[in-house]
Amino acid sequence: MKLIGYFRSSAAYRVRIALNLKGIAVEHASRHLRKGEHRAPDYVALNPQKLVPALVLDSGEVLTQSLAILEYLEETHPEPPLLPRDPVGRARVRALALIPTADIHPIQNLRVMSYLREKFGQTEESAFAWSRHWIETGFDAYEASISTDRRTGAFSHGNAPTMADLCLVPQIFNAARFKVDMTKYPTIQRIHDVCMKHPAFDAARPARQPDAEP
Amino acid sequence: MKLIGYFRSSAAYRVRIALNLKGIAVEHASRHLRKGEHRAPDYVALNPQKLVPALVLDSGEVLTQSLAILEYLEETHPEPPLLPRDPVGRARVRALALIPTADIHPIQNLRVMSYLREKFGQTEESAFAWSRHWIETGFDAYEASISTDRRTGAFSHGNAPTMADLCLVPQIFNAARFKVDMTKYPTIQRIHDVCMKHPAFDAARPARQPDAEP
Repeated sequence: MKLIGYFRSSAAYRVRIALNLKGIAVEHASRHLRKGEHRAPDYVALNPQKLVPALVLDSGEVLTQSLAILEYLEETHPEPPLLPRDPVGRARVRALALIPTADIHPIQNLRVMSYLREKFGQTEESAFAWSRHWIETGFDAYEASISTDRRTGAFSHGNAPTMADLCLVPQIFNAARFKVDMTKYPTIQRIHDVCMKHPAFDAARPARQPDAEP
Repeated sequence: MKLIGYFRSSAAYRVRIALNLKGIAVEHASRHLRKGEHRAPDYVALNPQKLVPALVLDSGEVLTQSLAILEYLEETHPEPPLLPRDPVGRARVRALALIPTADIHPIQNLRVMSYLREKFGQTEESAFAWSRHWIETGFDAYEASISTDRRTGAFSHGNAPTMADLCLVPQIFNAARFKVDMTKYPTIQRIHDVCMKHPAFDAARPARQPDAEP
């Protein structure tokens, strides 16, 4: 399999962690989002959604959308599991995973920030304030969902990493870029610190990727 | 079970279709988003994410995030299936479902539109142009993903409704409010027309809900 990503893409980062946790070796390729390489015809032919990541299977089939890829990896490489066994627990993990994936990241990613600057004439500062606002709104929701729930353990759900943590950690990395005050989110920060001691999370960090830039 | 929604919420609309397709009878309750009823303390105690829908199980447990609820319904009420059986097909359906769910709707929902007007001082017209832009970007991706793929049938994947259609249809309803030109998306429009002839989709329409307003 080949993962086409970008070192700083939160969505690609989620998939890198999953591959590492499950011990699946893949070839890595990169599309430089700031240079627009995801809009090049050869990539659009692979992924008409013009987003990263894309996972190219050995059969040639192309999977897109990070959460769909995580579910695919879970179904085809079930160990170690990234979802609990009980349906209510699975629903909880998926709901947590969707907070960064649907409620935060899409509103403050590169293409949205570009629109704010180019079409609305917003300054860098006000575009940053926008990003911080949506990250904080989402982290408020995430923190409130885990801080007093007894199902929260060392990780967001229990004592092993799940899809929720895989989606949370890249958003925390992103939050640091926008200078979000993480002291407001002690449970999220605690889980982040546990995750980053895990080699699967550490190796997936943007700075450790071959296409990383300062 | 009780579904707490809002007639015009795309996310609640997705879940209503699934419940209808699977023949699951639930109690319906509404939180008026424009009146801020989703921020009332009694609702925040149920769903600290302050979003609709929420599905309250008979056990009292509360499920949130429409896609997580759809997966829960699929796992606990497998017939008729809303996902195909093969992992690659399941990944395709989930990826399609994520286009409206993650890439369109979160960027142009009520709270984001409010920010544009209140913080950036955008006019109604420029906020509408914003919404249209993100709907069209997402529909371009959806149309390109289904128009020539042989797995597309009467519905987005094959000849029965899947999670992809459940997420697509509410976004088309939303697109009409923002006057998106649907002639650019013939495959999406064709699937929409097929869906709306299905009683499960028809009964889930915003206008058919008890809390509907003109």
